[in-house]
Amino acid sequence: MRQKPKILNIKTIARTRMFHIEKMDIEFHNGQRREYERLNPPGNGSVLVVPMLDAQTVLMIYEYSGGTDKYELALTKGRIDAGETPLEAANREIIEEIGYGAQQLSFVKTLTIAPGYQSNFTHIILAQDLYSASAKGDEPEPLKVVEHKLSTLETLVYNEDLTEARSIAALYMVREIIKNQR
Amino acid sequence: MRQKPKILNIKTIARTRMFHIEKMDIEFHNGQRREYERLNPPGNGSVLVVPMLDAQTVLMIYEYSGGTDKYELALTKGRIDAGETPLEAANREIIEEIGYGAQQLSFVKTLTIAPGYQSNFTHIILAQDLYSASAKGDEPEPLKVVEHKLSTLETLVYNEDLTEARSIAALYMVREIIKNQR
Repeated sequence: MRQKPKILNIKTIARTRMFHIEKMDIEFHNGQRREYERLNPPGNGSVLVVPMLDAQTVLMIYEYSGGTDKYELALTKGRIDAGETPLEAANREIIEEIGYGAQQLSFVKTLTIAPGYQSNFTHIILAQDLYSASAKGDEPEPLKVVEHKLSTLETLVYNEDLTEARSIAALYMVREIIKNQR
Repeated sequence: MRQKPKILNIKTIARTRMFHIEKMDIEFHNGQRREYERLNPPGNGSVLVVPMLDAQTVLMIYEYSGGTDKYELALTKGRIDAGETPLEAANREIIEEIGYGAQQLSFVKTLTIAPGYQSNFTHIILAQDLYSASAKGDEPEPLKVVEHKLSTLETLVYNEDLTEARSIAALYMVREIIKNQR
């Protein structure tokens, strides 16, 4: 692997309630210099959970998404709170969002969404052996929970309400994991 | 589908060279109000290209990524320039980044990366029937191009240098498309 570029300088150039933007001066091994901007959110990253009601049935949600200003079909996601492990955060999120906890939680893979200009990480967690449980989250309205079958994944990924890359990647990875569990 | 929440107000609260942050006041159908922040980049979105050297061999790149401060293994990506179609942008990007153009370019799906707080879209484009071609892009150093086989995808997705959700989702979708082309 190549020698990594040097970060000559990093400074914060904007900060809002939700976003923290940094400017970096980068020097590549060949002497080329570039100015990069990136989002560097505080915190411990987030989780995206694949909750399986049985070996074929995944529970997904419709949630209003401010970025695209529409209801998006996706998997349950959320920030990891201070002091929580990723598995604990995953269980809390499905209890709050879909009304189930999980006896079995397994780490699948840590994904990025735009590593060129964002530092955040999303841990994909598979949730199995579900039990009914609920708790109040901070959602402005109850989320609509829907069931989909992994056997229909090749069609589901073309559903126009399902656009989020992390959810699509996670569904494919979990389909393979579950196939190998049998 | 539910009635969409109302956007009561949108205003720009920060703007840097690369990022444009908006604050939205949202009212849900049940009367609940929330303040959302989102990234709303100007422009026409971006493309992510899956260039196939043959029915099994995908060309990927290692590129320094400022967000994670490491070399990431990913598919070729880039912004769509003014006046370009997504397919034209895809061809330009692979010519600049991997040294091939494509006789056959097909639209796969439009993905989002974080629809809750980002409005940007990425069009996934499959590139086939490649021909040698090169042009200078704006990269600070030549990108390292590597070949991977779709038959090894189940192992490749666990490669720790491959973390980007869009690339993983696109590889799975293209594997299925190519299987059906035979």
